[in-house]
Parts: sequence; structure tokens; C-alpha cells
Amino acid sequence: MGDLTRRSLLTGSVASAAAIGLPAAATAAPSTAPAGSSARPTTRADVVVVGAGLAGLTAARRLVAHGHSVVVLEARDRVGGRTLNHPIAKGKIAEAGGEFVGPTQDRIVALAREVGITTFDAYDSGNDVYQRGSIRLLYSDTSATGTAPPDPTLLVDIVKLSQQIDQMATTIPIEKPWTAPDAAAWDEQTLATWVRANAVNADGILELLAPFTEALIGAEPEDVSLFAVVAYVAAAGDAKNVGTFERLFNVRNGAQQSRLVGGSQLVSQRVAAALGHRVRLGSPVRRIARTAHGVQVESDRLTVIGRRVVVAVPPVLAAQIQYDPLLPVRRDQLVQRLPMGSLRKVEAIYATPFWRAAGLTGQFLTTGGPVGYSFDNSPPDGKPGVLAGFVGGAQNLKWSRHSPAELRAAVLAQYARLFQDDRFLKPEGFFEHDWSSERWSRGGPTYTPGPGTLTALGPALRAPVGHLHWAGTETSDYWIGYMDGAVRSGERVAAEVHASL
Amino acid sequence: MGDLTRRSLLTGSVASAAAIGLPAAATAAPSTAPAGSSARPTTRADVVVVGAGLAGLTAARRLVAHGHSVVVLEARDRVGGRTLNHPIAKGKIAEAGGEFVGPTQDRIVALAREVGITTFDAYDSGNDVYQRGSIRLLYSDTSATGTAPPDPTLLVDIVKLSQQIDQMATTIPIEKPWTAPDAAAWDEQTLATWVRANAVNADGILELLAPFTEALIGAEPEDVSLFAVVAYVAAAGDAKNVGTFERLFNVRNGAQQSRLVGGSQLVSQRVAAALGHRVRLGSPVRRIARTAHGVQVESDRLTVIGRRVVVAVPPVLAAQIQYDPLLPVRRDQLVQRLPMGSLRKVEAIYATPFWRAAGLTGQFLTTGGPVGYSFDNSPPDGKPGVLAGFVGGAQNLKWSRHSPAELRAAVLAQYARLFQDDRFLKPEGFFEHDWSSERWSRGGPTYTPGPGTLTALGPALRAPVGHLHWAGTETSDYWIGYMDGAVRSGERVAAEVHASL
Repeated sequence: MGDLTRRSLLTGSVASAAAIGLPAAATAAPSTAPAGSSARPTTRADVVVVGAGLAGLTAARRLVAHGHSVVVLEARDRVGGRTLNHPIAKGKIAEAGGEFVGPTQDRIVALAREVGITTFDAYDSGNDVYQRGSIRLLYSDTSATGTAPPDPTLLVDIVKLSQQIDQMATTIPIEKPWTAPDAAAWDEQTLATWVRANAVNADGILELLAPFTEALIGAEPEDVSLFAVVAYVAAAGDAKNVGTFERLFNVRNGAQQSRLVGGSQLVSQRVAAALGHRVRLGSPVRRIARTAHGVQVESDRLTVIGRRVVVAVPPVLAAQIQYDPLLPVRRDQLVQRLPMGSLRKVEAIYATPFWRAAGLTGQFLTTGGPVGYSFDNSPPDGKPGVLAGFVGGAQNLKWSRHSPAELRAAVLAQYARLFQDDRFLKPEGFFEHDWSSERWSRGGPTYTPGPGTLTALGPALRAPVGHLHWAGTETSDYWIGYMDGAVRSGERVAAEVHASL
Repeated sequence: MGDLTRRSLLTGSVASAAAIGLPAAATAAPSTAPAGSSARPTTRADVVVVGAGLAGLTAARRLVAHGHSVVVLEARDRVGGRTLNHPIAKGKIAEAGGEFVGPTQDRIVALAREVGITTFDAYDSGNDVYQRGSIRLLYSDTSATGTAPPDPTLLVDIVKLSQQIDQMATTIPIEKPWTAPDAAAWDEQTLATWVRANAVNADGILELLAPFTEALIGAEPEDVSLFAVVAYVAAAGDAKNVGTFERLFNVRNGAQQSRLVGGSQLVSQRVAAALGHRVRLGSPVRRIARTAHGVQVESDRLTVIGRRVVVAVPPVLAAQIQYDPLLPVRRDQLVQRLPMGSLRKVEAIYATPFWRAAGLTGQFLTTGGPVGYSFDNSPPDGKPGVLAGFVGGAQNLKWSRHSPAELRAAVLAQYARLFQDDRFLKPEGFFEHDWSSERWSRGGPTYTPGPGTLTALGPALRAPVGHLHWAGTETSDYWIGYMDGAVRSGERVAAEVHASL
């Protein structure tokens, strides 16, 4: 077991378990058994958690607090799943994955606070830039049209369609979206089909919608079910505040309003540190088998005999695990139909966020790529300046065939052109992170259900199968696809498992 | 290696290698290496083939004929993939998987002949039964309306829409369907969306279309891209005969015209017998790694070091294998987006095909399920009588929650009601085969691409990646989803690999 213990050392800041309200981590499990025929070490635990992202770690933390023994098996050599702190300067990081929090995302904020992490406002002072074809506009999200870019050829459609989507979202029962009155009709068509039927300038709206959906879900309007989009919008809230399209996309009062001091991955690192060597890194789970009284979970490094298992990975990764016996047909058919979007983050680093002095927020929205949406991703003190952008969906598929140098040049040229400032061409640093090239994510930021999937198979998303329970942001009621949804799913599954033990 | 040799014994009739035109199978590979650190035996071959269905076996057969050493790794304890002979009486079988061949499916027929297997006509004399709501009709496919059921409320739409689809299919370049002039517009919508826009009685057509698509692709009209359907229809032909909707669905002059004497799985069994212990059963492939000069293919029982690997399994299974290094983003994103349909075959066995004397073909088409389409699946001599049916798509998902006894009762009641003959209620035997519950198929009969997938990512279906080559019916030009497509893909990949060696 020596090697395993060594693997469980965590990187990043480590708070003491006592300081953040958990019992001190003793041994991960009450007993260890001799290695099985597979020659892998075997241990025991009440609950085996697959995946040390925010969902799995939240579940583990809560189950430990309930007094259960827990082992968390993580495929990667790090925790945090789709959050990742990328070092950019001494003691400074920029986030390469999920990072924002906002109103109604109370659960991620509460978890962060529990481990001593506070929030700060995302930079949002000044003008945004909008560009489509020959149109280039500066606009402020405090202006009359709000966050809608005041493109004269599209504004009427933008206002009308987003109001329609918001109205549709109000009809979604959050716990069971597939029971909405119009679920079948909406799930029969793509978002693109709906735009064609409802927009005056459909070609223009689809052109603009592409960078929206590319940044939001790593996909194109023709890839996703209208119903899935409406349900996703409806989920952007809480029991008192129904989700809206604006809350999803906005900085001010929206899902991009705040950031976490120290970076979003720090939350997972602190939770994992408190869990101690309950968390086993480098341990991809290959097989989950039913036993007489529970489950046997086999990873590359360790086999765990448990009473329950929580699978807290994206559906597409859950689909790679071998289950004995097979899962019910509906569950297996579902996870075949929930591909991940394709998303890459690019970040240029400058000595200072010089665009602020020019009255720019650093945000642009543009068609044609590679970046569709950019934003100021500098540390709280603005040193250094970081200008980040999303390359998603078809843009990311296109740029996956180009070299990193070509992408970098194209992105910087885009920054300089859109902000009309050649200083963007010469960053001090530049990095990119393509979540589609991550073996243990296979895309990002979340799933992209096509038509026919959620209405037919949605209930299998989180229905337990015997001793198998499901977590992960895709199984959340609120804030599907967000850090907050991941935490919520971890809380829900912990309660579910605890009640069953 | 003793255990491995034992596993490679094949069931079914075995013809001598010499008799069917292959060099006698000697050892599988020119040399064997000591077991690696994984403690699995290791061997070497020019080409490693993953999957012993018709595609993989065809590829292996051709590569061996070219003089290359080949090892075929098959996950199951049998060969034949989505073909499966089910014993029903002494020396008699009924097919539980793919079984029909028809005009322009020359490659499967040629392969069958090479291994001494002939065809016979599927039974098709008399009347078909059509039922929808309160409408029940007998009709003959030799009547004026041809194979279109003469439902007075739908006939005009059926004729118009199938003509439209056929016309659209003529615009598809078979080698690169995604370059069709209207590919983007068609791939932006589902088949259901197109019906709503083009049918007079859209609700009626969608109701009738469901049993069609359930039987044909195990999915619903809202699940699939219009473009994918048009491309699928276009593929139902050959270089001289463009595919048509009728050829896909018909018995007479269609894809269900003929059957193989001895059952369709016998083709694979004979090809595998000739390949001898080149074929290793019970060997699911878990990992494919690049080496300095080729590939290392790791299965549960055997690791093979090869110069090339041919992955000849459905995309959803190819997506479960771990690749080192990772596959290109476009390939990985593609295989996340090609779920299998859901399909079950049910077969009732009677002493004789008594319906023939009543002037019935045994074929019905009906809405409401469980079976949508039935047919006479008796052996060539009509002893015993077998009445088979497809339970597909939403129907199969629904019935996956019922017991086998409930399904059996519902199917037999349906047979008796539709054919108005209570003898159907008391079969001598009954079996069902749910391809969605097969670990090494995960559904059937083939893939079901949603909108946005094939136009964005189609070229990655068969583009080799370094020393990795792709086969399987989904990678075929003609007859995608059929046995003929599987054979064609095996022939294509064998030529591709041979040319590269």
C-alpha cells in the first residue's frame, strides 16, 4: 500500500482537517483485505466514490461527516475535475476550467466558505465589444438594452427570442423537466430549427447564436435539443428564482459575476486535503461489479469492496466503465446519448490589464472565431493582466487541426483587431487548455443532449441502480453544467446514500 | 497459451480452410514474445483486428490471403457480431440478429458463396396486414400502391414523402455524403421536424413512421438527423443503383428479399473456422497504444504487438477503448455522438407456418407496439413455423421495464389480434433477443446519428489515425447498417492496410 499512500499526496494549499470542520482523516477504510486475483490491493469502505471533482468530493465530505468510511477513486493525478488552476506567475494562477460563480449559486459559495475561500467580483467596468461582419459596436451592460448587444439588424429578434426562452423556462418542473407540458414538442427539434421558425432574421441570429452556444455548452445550435436548452436555462436559478437566459450569460447579476480567491480548483484541493488519504489519485475505475452485499469497484491501482458506490463523473465517462451485471437498458442508452461539448480556453498574459484604462471590460462577443467570447481573467489585484477566451464547438473542432502556434497567432490577432490595440499582439505569456483533449473529461463544459434524449431517458440520469448512485453536475436539479450543480449533486447523492445505509 | 487455444475453438459448422480458398491456418502469428508486465501472454502479428463480426473477419480473411499474419481479438465467446443463430429445433435455427440480403448487396452474397452458403427467398406470398387505430387493412405488395400500405388518410403523404426522400438521396455523394449541397440544412433538423414541415397529416405520418424507424434503426423520427436518414437511404444501393426508401424497406426487390441457408451467423463461423486460431475469443480489447513501429493491442487474455490495427466494432464500442496517445479530438467527439439504436427481436415458434394457408405473408405493420413490424422467419422448409417481430426504439425502452413473460403475452396477443387467429396465442416456443442488453453491441441494428454530427465530424468515421484503421458497417459507403456494409468495410480496410504495409 506504500505506493498508494504516496499517490494520495495532494498538490495545492492544504488546510488542516480540523480547521475546516471535518473529523481528522485517519485510515481511509476500516480494514484492508489481501490482494485479489487481479494482484491489485483491495480495501473496504462503506462508500466508494468514483471521481474527485466537486461532485464526488462534496459527496465524500458529507458522507464522512455522517460517520461513513469512504474511499474516493480519481483517475487523474489531481483533484478538481473540470476546474484547474494554471500557474502564471509566482503565487499567481489563472483558471483553465470552470471558474465563475453568481447569484443563486449558493451551494458552491457555501462550500468554498467552509474551506476558507472567499469570492471577488469579476472585472466588469467599461464597455464590451461586439462584432459581426462589418458591424463593430462598443456597448455597456448598464445601457438601455442591457446585456443584449445593440446590433440594429438583430436586436428585435434577440429581445423577443430571449423573452420567449425565458417564458418557456417557467413551464419546466425542475425536478422532472421531461414532464413539462411541451416537452415532447420541444425535444423533437433542435435549437436551430426553433430559431428558423421564430426569428425574423434567422440566418443572422444563428450566426450570433453560435459563439453563445460555443462558449456556454461547447456546441452549435443545430447540435442540441430545444428542450434541453430550455431545461438548461430553467436550471439557472434556485427554488425562489426561476432561471433566465440573461442570468446564464451575464456578468452583472449573472453566472459570471464573481470568482474564487485562489482559483476554483482550490476548493477541491482543500476538501480533498481534509479527506486525506481517503482520496486515491491515478486510479481510473474500470469495472463495478455487484456483490452479495454491495459492490466491488476496480481501479488500476486499488480494488475497493463497498456497500454503495457513487459514480460522480460525466455521463460519457460513466459509459466507459464495465458494469457487472449490465446496467438497465434505459441507463445504458442514455449515457450513449450525452456527448460532451468541445471547449478550449485560451489565455493571454500581459504585465497589466491595460485595456481597463481604455474603458474596456475585456469582454467581446464576435462571430467567425476562433474566440467567440472573451473576458478579463486577471487575478484579484490585476497583476498580471489576463485576457481569456472560449474556443468552442465547431470553432474548436476546426482549430484542433491547427498547431498551437497558429491558434495563438489567430487569437492574438483577433484580440488586437476587436479591441483596436496592437499591444494585445505581444503577451508575456499564453496558454490554452483543450478539455476535449483531456482523457478524463473528453470535452467540456458539460453534456449536449440532442433531440429525443431527455424526454425518453432523462429519469435514468440520477435514478439509483441497486447500490449504484449517480452524481455530477449533469445530474443536478439547479445549475446543470456549473460548479454549483456539481456541489448540489454531491449533496443530494450523499443524502440519498446516507438514507440507504 | 493452452487456455487461449482452447478458447479459440469455434462453434457451428466448420469447413476446411482449403475448401474455401484460404491458406491452411498455421500458427496465428510468426512469433510469440514473453508475457509483459501485465502478466498477459504477448504475441506478434502484422495486423491486429479488433472484433470478429463480418467486418473484422472479412478484413482478416483478405489480409491473410495477401500473406499478412493476423490476430483477431473478439470480446465475445462467439464470432458473428450482430448476427446470431438461435437453435429452435434439432438442426434448425432462427436468426436473432441481422439476417436478410437483397439486390445490390453483392458483397455479403459473394462472401457467403465463397464459404459455401447459398440464399433462399424470404417467404412473401399473400397479404400483409396494416393496422393503425381503427383502421385494419389487408394488402399485397403486388397491388397498385405497391408496398405503401393503402391507408386512405395517409397514402398521399406516404407516396409524396418517400418520393421526396428518394429525390434527396440522389444528391448524396456516397463517398462523402457530408458534401451534398443541402447537407447542412438537412443536418440541422430531425426527421420529425422535416415531416412536420412537409406532410399534410403530420401527426398521422409520425405515428406510422415510428414503427418504420423502430424496425429499421431502433430509434424514433425525433432522434435522428434528417441528413443522416437521407444518407442512409442513399447508401441502400450500389454504384449503378442509387438507394431508395422502398429498397430499404421491401421484401420483394428489397433488403429483405433473401436469406442465407443455415443462418447468417454461419458466414462468420465459416470464415472464422478458416482463420483457425488466428481468432481469439473472450478477449475484449481494453487499450491500444502506439509503439515505435506500430501498435500494442491489449485484451483481457492476450496482448498483441502489431504493425497495424483494424478496429472493426461499432463506434460506441470503439469509444470504450483507451487509446494512447489520445485520438484526435474530432474522432473522439464523433464516437461520443453515434449511439446505437435500441432493438429487440421476438420470435414465436409454431409446428407449421399455418398463416401461409390463410393467404398471409406473416408481415404486419402496426402502430402502438410492442412489435411494429413482423415477418415469417421460418427455415427454408417451413418446419417449424417462425413468426418474428421487431420491438425497437421507444417501444423497446418501454418494454425493457416489463418482464419477459409480460412481453411474450403482449406480443402473442398482438399477433392473434392483427392476424385474427387465436392459434398465435399458443406457440411451441418463444424467444427474444435484446441487442441493447448485449454488452458487446450496446444496441442495434446500427448507429443513430443526431443532428449536427455527420456534417461536422463524418470524415473521421473512416480516416485512419496513424497505424489505426476503422471498419464496421457504420464506416461503409454502401449499405451502412447492413451485413453487406460490414463486408464492404472489411474489404475496404483490408485494401487500405495492405497498401500501407
